[in-house]
Amino acid sequence: MVADRLSTTFAALADPTRRAILGRLSRGETSVMELAKPFKMSLPAISKHLKVLERAKLIVRSREAQWRPCRLHPEPLKDIAQWIEHYRRFWEESFDRLEVYLEQLQAREKKDARNK
Amino acid sequence: MVADRLSTTFAALADPTRRAILGRLSRGETSVMELAKPFKMSLPAISKHLKVLERAKLIVRSREAQWRPCRLHPEPLKDIAQWIEHYRRFWEESFDRLEVYLEQLQAREKKDARNK
Repeated sequence: MVADRLSTTFAALADPTRRAILGRLSRGETSVMELAKPFKMSLPAISKHLKVLERAKLIVRSREAQWRPCRLHPEPLKDIAQWIEHYRRFWEESFDRLEVYLEQLQAREKKDARNK
Repeated sequence: MVADRLSTTFAALADPTRRAILGRLSRGETSVMELAKPFKMSLPAISKHLKVLERAKLIVRSREAQWRPCRLHPEPLKDIAQWIEHYRRFWEESFDRLEVYLEQLQAREKKDARNK
């Protein structure tokens, strides 16, 4: 079964090392050697993670330069952001309810203070 | 190894059935029986998906009513939205670059039209 595109993106993001690699690439393109440095991992292990990110189209590896720099490819992240947007009202609603509750609490405390 | 919270959320979302279940719950709480209806899946298969969503804290199952309705729990989605926000400038930048290019193209076409 071919996984759908959103599932492939979510699966690629379900790993802290892969998210850290994207974080590094958000500061600019770099080589595999440079990417591997902050991790206590072998180059083959890092290469495996890069392949997952590449298949998910979250990174692009240049074929021009011999050091084949990796670059962030943000489009799949945009698709996820759009998917998640549908749910924004749910967490904002619960925040609104908390705010209303805090305002009521404050009003009650003021009233209590006046009645003392 | 205990997976970190973001990874657990991303992994739970890496499945079209689980995302469809969240989509259904965004229209209101409902029973497992109702959730299973649109899918060509056995109840145990749906239950497995619900357990993944529950472990990721993306849904909550009420213990009060006997039919144990499922409810959306949006907080982990909020965390993902915040994580992804860091990357927004990348896809907006590439959109800006496209816009500039299209404007230049249009300006050139107008100039060409005048020179004919």
